[in-house]
Amino acid sequence: MERARLSLNQYTVKPWSLERAVAACVEREIPSIAVWRDKLADVGLARAVALVRDAGLRVSSVCRGGFFPSAGAAERAQRIDDTRRAIDEAAALGAPTLVLVCGPAGGQSLTDARAQVADGIAALAGEAAAAHVRLGIEPLHPMMIAERSVIASLREANDLVQTIGSPAVGVVADVYHIFWDAHVDAEIARAGVSIAGFHLSDWTTPRDDVTADRAMIGTGCIELSALAASVAAAGYHDDVEIEILNAEAWANADLDAWLDNAVERYLAVV
Amino acid sequence: MERARLSLNQYTVKPWSLERAVAACVEREIPSIAVWRDKLADVGLARAVALVRDAGLRVSSVCRGGFFPSAGAAERAQRIDDTRRAIDEAAALGAPTLVLVCGPAGGQSLTDARAQVADGIAALAGEAAAAHVRLGIEPLHPMMIAERSVIASLREANDLVQTIGSPAVGVVADVYHIFWDAHVDAEIARAGVSIAGFHLSDWTTPRDDVTADRAMIGTGCIELSALAASVAAAGYHDDVEIEILNAEAWANADLDAWLDNAVERYLAVV
Repeated sequence: MERARLSLNQYTVKPWSLERAVAACVEREIPSIAVWRDKLADVGLARAVALVRDAGLRVSSVCRGGFFPSAGAAERAQRIDDTRRAIDEAAALGAPTLVLVCGPAGGQSLTDARAQVADGIAALAGEAAAAHVRLGIEPLHPMMIAERSVIASLREANDLVQTIGSPAVGVVADVYHIFWDAHVDAEIARAGVSIAGFHLSDWTTPRDDVTADRAMIGTGCIELSALAASVAAAGYHDDVEIEILNAEAWANADLDAWLDNAVERYLAVV
Repeated sequence: MERARLSLNQYTVKPWSLERAVAACVEREIPSIAVWRDKLADVGLARAVALVRDAGLRVSSVCRGGFFPSAGAAERAQRIDDTRRAIDEAAALGAPTLVLVCGPAGGQSLTDARAQVADGIAALAGEAAAAHVRLGIEPLHPMMIAERSVIASLREANDLVQTIGSPAVGVVADVYHIFWDAHVDAEIARAGVSIAGFHLSDWTTPRDDVTADRAMIGTGCIELSALAASVAAAGYHDDVEIEILNAEAWANADLDAWLDNAVERYLAVV
C-alpha cells in the first residue's frame, strides 16, 4: 500500500515510549501514528499533543475505550466515564477515531453483556459527535471473547452500528480479527462509510498468547491484498495501521529491524 | 440432560483404547459412544463392531472424514476416497453421522479451499445417503482455520448444507466452536433438522493448545443450557456427545474421575 496512508500503531513496538515511537516514524517517513492510552499517560496529554504536532504526524486513532459490561451499575458508569476521557484525548490529539474494545461479559450472559455494550456506546455517541471523534467498534477474534470482547464478528459490529444509528459510531476492521469469516467481504461492503479504521498484521495459529502472537505482514495466511481491496471498494481511504502485537518480538527482537521489516512489507505485500 | 441421550466421545478419554472406553460406558450406564478412526484402526472394524454390539451401545458418530482442500487433484481424490472409507465404517458401526472436519486451505486462498470442500462433500452425498449415514459438517472455531477447518462458523456450514441440498448432508453443532456467535441461536434454528450432532464441553481461553484445551462442562463461560434448548427447539433429539479434548487431562488426570465428573455435570448442569 502507499506510504502516504501508513500509520504505526505503537503497540507494534510496545516497549518503546511515545517519544521513541514518534522519532521512529519521523526517521522512516511514516506520516501517522496510533497512540495507546497507557503510553499517553506516561508522558501526559499536553506533551503528547506537542510531540506529534512538532513531528508533523497525524494521529490515526487512540486505543482504546470500551470494556462496558459489568454486573455493577456503578462500574458500568465508571467505564463510560473512562471512555469519555478517551474521547477528549482523541479530540486533543486530532485523532478521527477512538478504538473501542468492548469488553468481556464478566460472569454475565453474553446477551446481557452485549446489551450493556450497546447502552455504553449509545450513551457516548452524542459527545463523540460533538468532539468530531468517531467511536470505532473493533470486533475481536472469537478466541478473545472471554477476556476482551463480546463483540466477536464484523457482522455483529455492523449490527450494532445499525442499531445505534449515529454517524459518530463506526467499525474498525482489523484483518487479524475478521479474516476467517466466509462473509467478510460482504460485511466490509455493508460497513461502507462506517469503516473508521483498517489494521494490518497476519495470522499464524497462536501458540502461547491469543492477544500478542500476531504474525508479521506477509508471513501468515491472511489474504491482505484482497481485504485491502474490499476496504477500499467500501469507501475507506484514510490511514492504514500496522498493528502487530507480538510478545516474542517485544521481548527479543531488534525492534528497529522489526519495524523496518513491517514497513517494507506494508509497501510491498499489501 | 437426560442419561438416555448421553454419548461419550472417546477423545474425552483419548489415552484409552476402544475396549477400555466401551467398558467405561458400560460401567457408567452411558448408552452411546462416538468412535474415532485412529482408535478404530487400532482394533480393526470387525472387532469394533462386535465390541459395541456386545456392549449394547449405540454409536452416535464416527470422527472424522474431510480435510478436502489440496492444491493437487490426486490428493483431493485421495481425501475423498478416505472419507468414502469412513462412510463405510460409520455404516458398519450403525452410526447415523460421520463428522466432517473440512480441512485447512493448505496454501491456497480461503475461497478456493472452500470451493474444494463443497466439491468433496457433494461428490460423496449420494454414497452417504445410500449408506444411511449423514455427513455432518462441523464448523470449527475460527482460531483453527489455518490448521483444521476453513469452515469457521455455523452460518457458513448452514450455507454449505443449503448449497449442496442433500438430506444426507447436515451440520454438527459443537458448543466450543460456535458459542461466541451473536447469531448462534438463529443459526441453530436455521439448521433445524439438518443438525446431525450436538457436542458439549466448555470454554476458558485456551492457553497452550487451541485444539485440546477444552474445559470441563460447567467450568467455563458457555451458556450450555440455553444452547441445548435452542438445539432441542430446532428439532434435534438424538444423542448428545460429551467431547472434552483436554491435553492436560490426558497427560495428568485420573481419567476415570475425569469421566465421572463429565457425566455428573452433563446430568446436572446442562
